[in-house]
Amino acid sequence: MNIHELIGELREPAKTKIVLLVADGLGGLPVVKGGKTELETARVPNLDACAADGVSGLSTPVLPGVTPGSGPGHLGLFGYDPLEFRIGRGILEALGINFAVGASDVAVRGNFCTMAPDGTIADRRAGRPTTARCVEVVEKLRAITLPGVEIFVEPVKEHRFVLVFRAVGLGGHVNDTDPQVTGVEPLPAAGKDAPSQRTAEFANAFMALAREVLRHEPDCSGAVLRGFATYPTITTFADLYGLKPAAIAVYPMYKGLARLVGMDVLDAGQTLGDQMARLKASWNDYDFFFLHYKYTDSTGEDGNFPAKVEMIEKLDAIVPQIRALNPDVFIVTGDHSTPSKFKSHSFHPVPTVIVAPETARPDGNTEFSESACLRGGLGHFQAMHLMLLAMAHANRLGKYGA
Amino acid sequence: MNIHELIGELREPAKTKIVLLVADGLGGLPVVKGGKTELETARVPNLDACAADGVSGLSTPVLPGVTPGSGPGHLGLFGYDPLEFRIGRGILEALGINFAVGASDVAVRGNFCTMAPDGTIADRRAGRPTTARCVEVVEKLRAITLPGVEIFVEPVKEHRFVLVFRAVGLGGHVNDTDPQVTGVEPLPAAGKDAPSQRTAEFANAFMALAREVLRHEPDCSGAVLRGFATYPTITTFADLYGLKPAAIAVYPMYKGLARLVGMDVLDAGQTLGDQMARLKASWNDYDFFFLHYKYTDSTGEDGNFPAKVEMIEKLDAIVPQIRALNPDVFIVTGDHSTPSKFKSHSFHPVPTVIVAPETARPDGNTEFSESACLRGGLGHFQAMHLMLLAMAHANRLGKYGA
Repeated sequence: MNIHELIGELREPAKTKIVLLVADGLGGLPVVKGGKTELETARVPNLDACAADGVSGLSTPVLPGVTPGSGPGHLGLFGYDPLEFRIGRGILEALGINFAVGASDVAVRGNFCTMAPDGTIADRRAGRPTTARCVEVVEKLRAITLPGVEIFVEPVKEHRFVLVFRAVGLGGHVNDTDPQVTGVEPLPAAGKDAPSQRTAEFANAFMALAREVLRHEPDCSGAVLRGFATYPTITTFADLYGLKPAAIAVYPMYKGLARLVGMDVLDAGQTLGDQMARLKASWNDYDFFFLHYKYTDSTGEDGNFPAKVEMIEKLDAIVPQIRALNPDVFIVTGDHSTPSKFKSHSFHPVPTVIVAPETARPDGNTEFSESACLRGGLGHFQAMHLMLLAMAHANRLGKYGA
Repeated sequence: MNIHELIGELREPAKTKIVLLVADGLGGLPVVKGGKTELETARVPNLDACAADGVSGLSTPVLPGVTPGSGPGHLGLFGYDPLEFRIGRGILEALGINFAVGASDVAVRGNFCTMAPDGTIADRRAGRPTTARCVEVVEKLRAITLPGVEIFVEPVKEHRFVLVFRAVGLGGHVNDTDPQVTGVEPLPAAGKDAPSQRTAEFANAFMALAREVLRHEPDCSGAVLRGFATYPTITTFADLYGLKPAAIAVYPMYKGLARLVGMDVLDAGQTLGDQMARLKASWNDYDFFFLHYKYTDSTGEDGNFPAKVEMIEKLDAIVPQIRALNPDVFIVTGDHSTPSKFKSHSFHPVPTVIVAPETARPDGNTEFSESACLRGGLGHFQAMHLMLLAMAHANRLGKYGA
């Protein structure tokens, strides 16, 4: 029996509420020998109180040593084996902008870039245009049509857009046209199988026309494509856990991930304050809340240790507002580590705490940090088992077997 | 997706070097209540420094409670699920003496024994003959021929030899003829299926003739067979990890295991000093080194607690020579525990440390011992995940998913 079958057999209705607060890229590393991580450096009295009141541990996002992207990182936290369920970047981006992706769609993430006169890429992010500028250029691409396929182009943010090809029988096994370096031309698309080759041919035809349309733009004079993907079928949170889930996330990709597993994506505004207001306003309407906080990851990606510390402290400050709502289960974790030392995601396990006054077994840990969670009562666990723990602590899983 | 497919997708080339030092049977037990293990008793300042500088934990060779032989123990450390990949002892022994085992071979480990006049076994190790004596007796067995099969007999060490049957369609599911006790006759061989029954018939015919050939030898007047095995197909280290691996092992079986996964088996001499000289001389030619140290196991098997302590201290003494080479990742572990209290392999998890100055998350542990590694940052992990950790700490695994 796999875990989803097990949950289907064991899950029980309950009135309990679960809050899952994901601090993206939460885990870190010291930058000097003998130093502290970002989280160990931050002053986090409220998260420390969670550790003291709850049970903590370290979450392994996929497997020891495996660094996840945002997709696998979140799917694991949501209880979907990230080695079994794979979501392409294009689909994530499309979901994140609320585009109604369908079963016959192939979605791709597009990046505007600035082309040199010789046809090579001069700036992979087109000088970071404003989102308003992105909207303007996307409008021009919308004029492009091709026979045999419906095409949608949608702005995302800054240099990013989404491109969707809609036609029956398209495949998603197509390489990125983004060479990931400057000074070379975009790569041609090629499909790994016949349905994907059809997609690749549409993509190449589209890009040839796009190049013409964009050639006189000063900044966004070209584009590259990444993460061709078809829409996956995935059991929803409601069907899997019997929960009524809501997502309160600011950034598109995390809204997209939440929508993919069937969460209601609520208007989260732009700030933690907005997110807290939404949580309070929606408290009676849902029994599961996924709160996403991006800035622990983005500051880590920037390699900005003090900024990551500050963002952790900002997150800490809103924790009492969540706890004041008296969730039966309140979880703080991350989808992966993003040490500012690395300026990227990493494989290191992620500090995690479960506050569940009625059901958690205390572990004596009084500090929310990498080194303290290492000694916590949850031990090292796989992220894909966190929802089992959430459901159990929420009295939502019955006994297995007689 | 299984782990090997995942590694194939994620692995990235790098210039980093990994050293895996396997102290065979490293883990132990106290012999008196409140006492210390062998490793806890030993003075190991250099291994303690590894723990202080790196990240430590406990390795579970197969599954909790499962005691592995040398084959599964090492396959796990090399990243091959020991429940999926099974290597028979005969194959290991044949590989260890550099015998060119082929796809149509069944290899068996043979032990000379001394027979009593009544046809029962009087001494299961034939009075521990010298290896020169083993060569002499093996020469006599080489006179034996059977129709329909090629037979190879090769001396190993002391009372041990290898017997290989070569014919298309032979199976390896044959019982040991070694009854593992004295005072009884060797067992007849029987096959579990038709191809294995053919092997068993050859084996019984061979043993009948061998008994005649050996009957007047004073010491090696008989022989028993163990570990019938066919040659497995297994992905090489180069294909799996993109590493160029070398093995520096003194004992045949470990050379054989290394060769099985495609390592270059270097001349390791006979002593730790020889092994260190070989490591230094080959440092620029490989990016992965498997160093095997046997004496932590053999002293444990002898039930000699102080000797095991001494062998651990001898190993500790050479650690600075390895670290002086500045490997990017230096791992010290064991393939299993061999408590001298048990005089045998055991199921207890194995102290492990990864020293990786750029990538390891410090865990505050300053001692290399069973009890200290228990609180280390790697937690309890499965041995088959150690290579994922090695690759990750060596910056040789890319991000999984978008």
